[in-house]
Amino acid sequence: MSVRSAALPPIADTQSGADDRQLAIGRVGVRGVRYPLQLRLDAATSTHTVAEWELDVTLPAEKKGTHMSRLVAWLDDFHLSSIPLDADVLRLALAQMLQKLEATEGQVRAEFPFFLRKRAPVSHVESLLAYQGSLRAQTHSGLTTVWAEIVVPVKSLCPCSKAIAAAGAHNQRSHVTIGLELLNKAVSWQELARFAEEAASSELWSLLKREDEKWITEHAYANPRFVEDLVREVALRLNQDARIGRYRVDVENFESIHAHSAFARIERGIWPMA
Amino acid sequence: MSVRSAALPPIADTQSGADDRQLAIGRVGVRGVRYPLQLRLDAATSTHTVAEWELDVTLPAEKKGTHMSRLVAWLDDFHLSSIPLDADVLRLALAQMLQKLEATEGQVRAEFPFFLRKRAPVSHVESLLAYQGSLRAQTHSGLTTVWAEIVVPVKSLCPCSKAIAAAGAHNQRSHVTIGLELLNKAVSWQELARFAEEAASSELWSLLKREDEKWITEHAYANPRFVEDLVREVALRLNQDARIGRYRVDVENFESIHAHSAFARIERGIWPMA
Amino acid sequence: MSVRSAALPPIADTQSGADDRQLAIGRVGVRGVRYPLQLRLDAATSTHTVAEWELDVTLPAEKKGTHMSRLVAWLDDFHLSSIPLDADVLRLALAQMLQKLEATEGQVRAEFPFFLRKRAPVSHVESLLAYQGSLRAQTHSGLTTVWAEIVVPVKSLCPCSKAIAAAGAHNQRSHVTIGLELLNKAVSWQELARFAEEAASSELWSLLKREDEKWITEHAYANPRFVEDLVREVALRLNQDARIGRYRVDVENFESIHAHSAFARIERGIWPMA
Amino acid sequence: MSVRSAALPPIADTQSGADDRQLAIGRVGVRGVRYPLQLRLDAATSTHTVAEWELDVTLPAEKKGTHMSRLVAWLDDFHLSSIPLDADVLRLALAQMLQKLEATEGQVRAEFPFFLRKRAPVSHVESLLAYQGSLRAQTHSGLTTVWAEIVVPVKSLCPCSKAIAAAGAHNQRSHVTIGLELLNKAVSWQELARFAEEAASSELWSLLKREDEKWITEHAYANPRFVEDLVREVALRLNQDARIGRYRVDVENFESIHAHSAFARIERGIWPMA
Repeated sequence: MSVRSAALPPIADTQSGADDRQLAIGRVGVRGVRYPLQLRLDAATSTHTVAEWELDVTLPAEKKGTHMSRLVAWLDDFHLSSIPLDADVLRLALAQMLQKLEATEGQVRAEFPFFLRKRAPVSHVESLLAYQGSLRAQTHSGLTTVWAEIVVPVKSLCPCSKAIAAAGAHNQRSHVTIGLELLNKAVSWQELARFAEEAASSELWSLLKREDEKWITEHAYANPRFVEDLVREVALRLNQDARIGRYRVDVENFESIHAHSAFARIERGIWPMA
Repeated sequence: MSVRSAALPPIADTQSGADDRQLAIGRVGVRGVRYPLQLRLDAATSTHTVAEWELDVTLPAEKKGTHMSRLVAWLDDFHLSSIPLDADVLRLALAQMLQKLEATEGQVRAEFPFFLRKRAPVSHVESLLAYQGSLRAQTHSGLTTVWAEIVVPVKSLCPCSKAIAAAGAHNQRSHVTIGLELLNKAVSWQELARFAEEAASSELWSLLKREDEKWITEHAYANPRFVEDLVREVALRLNQDARIGRYRVDVENFESIHAHSAFARIERGIWPMA
Repeated sequence: MSVRSAALPPIADTQSGADDRQLAIGRVGVRGVRYPLQLRLDAATSTHTVAEWELDVTLPAEKKGTHMSRLVAWLDDFHLSSIPLDADVLRLALAQMLQKLEATEGQVRAEFPFFLRKRAPVSHVESLLAYQGSLRAQTHSGLTTVWAEIVVPVKSLCPCSKAIAAAGAHNQRSHVTIGLELLNKAVSWQELARFAEEAASSELWSLLKREDEKWITEHAYANPRFVEDLVREVALRLNQDARIGRYRVDVENFESIHAHSAFARIERGIWPMA
Repeated sequence: MSVRSAALPPIADTQSGADDRQLAIGRVGVRGVRYPLQLRLDAATSTHTVAEWELDVTLPAEKKGTHMSRLVAWLDDFHLSSIPLDADVLRLALAQMLQKLEATEGQVRAEFPFFLRKRAPVSHVESLLAYQGSLRAQTHSGLTTVWAEIVVPVKSLCPCSKAIAAAGAHNQRSHVTIGLELLNKAVSWQELARFAEEAASSELWSLLKREDEKWITEHAYANPRFVEDLVREVALRLNQDARIGRYRVDVENFESIHAHSAFARIERGIWPMA
């Protein structure tokens, strides 16, 4: 080993070399990095959670490689700053990341569970419901955009089943996924959840007493929704909110009469690079 | 490189060395190996599917390692034999695997989707429903046992919700998982599926016309089942079948009023090493 | 029940009603439907596997709902036809599906594992390696395009680690995902796999003898690849093939010195709706 | 609706009814409930994370159902208490849960990611590494036991590959899963992680500079480990620690020369109900 070792520069910097394949790389970075996160829920509240991060930059054709470790170093710095994450913070943080990587284009994405405290509809007992959220910022051609996504679990009850059956109606858990561009005005995570919950046959709670179970059963039966209705009802609410730009709404019903899902999607505007 | 290479035995057999840590290894082998599978469905029928295999043996304290590649070689031989897999075939195949590995204890497990053709209850339109199955054989202390497992998707409708609500009742998709020891008499995959489907508020189909949807809605409403009822109804059916030895029944309801599951388990006999 | 039942039309057709929310739905259909599949591997060969299907159409603003069951009926018909699936077959099948749904736009996607028989590099022992593939056809604005995707597991060895270490170099499993538009000329699944395998530090096999393990270790050490090199080497090969239109190449290295992944992406052309 | 509604008791308590099927249920409860968690890391430190809970009790043959909502109510109470979770706390909390459910047997399981701050071996830059942990308490036949489990990502380098190749050696990420019974003396999460990390070819870090990458490459090359070596080295360390009772060690190598895993398991004592 000693012979070969002697012939080497102590720590060669292979990534910084030149590349002659004339191929730029649209995205290069790290993925699946888990880190604790302080998340801003609204103007008054922040909360602790755990995020999975994806961090990447564009690499010009003439460069051999990016410096992956700087991405993780940036993440650790952000963590140590203890600043609760929201859209404005992420926008600034992305600019710092690009500077650190000497890159002009790139993106940051954090995905995390978060919790909202909810009161059951009749008994008013309280419990937490988990939602999956994500925030993403990307800079391309000098323009930075910020995107939020939320997955909201709800109940859907089939209008056809109700209409044709002598009693009952099949219903099931559904996931409403709302992804949208955040413009200058803030939209809280609570508001995002409500866009989906108000459109559903019923919202969900972690803790329900029998009087609540009676209410949710009857409320869903009185508000049947096809997957098509649900996606449209969410889109209608988004269309009426001037703070919201481009969006994509996905609804998936985990059908209780089949072993597969029904799904629907409405988009407004061109959706960015996934 | 040439100097070091010259000093080496051409192909050293490191695994066959001795070990002095005085620790036997209960299970060592390979996992996540995907291979095509011909599966016997019943005496008259076999079908093509894709299986994921787990193959392992016990390693005595004095041996450094097992020969992993022989496990995969055994699997490829089994594949080339084109013999449809059932309990008897797996029992014989395990004996051959242990011989090839020079081991006295070990196990084989194959997990795979399979399909049964079903007729909708009113329209009689036909479609395939996918079930997840597995077969496992294990030899320990000179005794070989064979185990089957099936995951059956069904519908459950809540008796409490029906009893307390003025109209409707919450219902949802549920998974019934039946794992059991196969004794000398064959039990077909169709029969295993029926143990679960007959116990549920309703079975599922991939293709239903409106008259079938009416039937399934009304049938489930007339047959409410708690998760406790469902697991007991499956256990009752297994208890009445003399061909079945030890078993474990798991039911998971993907609750449509919550974002979490309700579950229940009944076991008969001591369950083997997972 | 009888009173309410008497007041109902026997089987109301709720989905066929009108909708006044003035919102078209870009995609509505079913997802997660598993069905057996006969897959064409090349001009001479087809094979049995299991696919998961996603089937959807565009719904005009004035229609309340689509007929989900017709999508599954179409799938069962396709299955019963026993025609091995390839790009041309999928193109025709999509046209039939749209006709059955009375839709002008829509898409079909099937995802499935498939197997290629490979010979180890020195011993020439044979075994099967599993690849994940998918085929998708979509019709939008009167134009139908067909897309293939393959996930190829390979080995990557880090050039930096090799350059700076006195001995050894970290290496790991990587997944190369190639998605591309299929133009008029056929590209076989074997050819798609080779685009990735020839670009990697080494390809993989399920069964290797010791002489093969020696070869693969030395071959990877002689062919180090950053994630950036790997994605560029695949793109170079695709650029040189006149049969290939738009594409996206993703490489993910499951880093063996970290608990997270490094990844890179190169795209050519605008990527379609996911 | 009004007629039927009038005939009902306002809120029937269906679960509390009697059951005549003469089948006790070993486990019945809820699963997949996500809640924020304060976790005790060692005597001096606690941390915020997110847990997924599984809560269940044994149901006697004569009872129709359990009261699922009390399980979630118990969880919310525990959350509001803000007591950091450790083995002693979980033991007490389980007793309270059983009392609330009027049950004599049952179990609680929480699974969560947690983070340890680590210094890179040469540069001493710091970063967080995520580990998956779980704590479980169960009461059966009047005896309560508490179990911890940790999944530790490490690097393994193949001794055979090193021995037979002229240069290099294949290596990969591995997961070491240690599950053990906690007796009266505390074992910290840091100590559990070290059992695995000291046994591996190398431990992992999220952030490494080039001098660290040189170190980890050379260190792993100097410390080759078969999956059999790795599982034995962990077991040896556990055997030498008087605080530890029954245990199970699982190692899975995500082989970089194959698309499947090699795995090994050593157990001491009879492993409890999964």
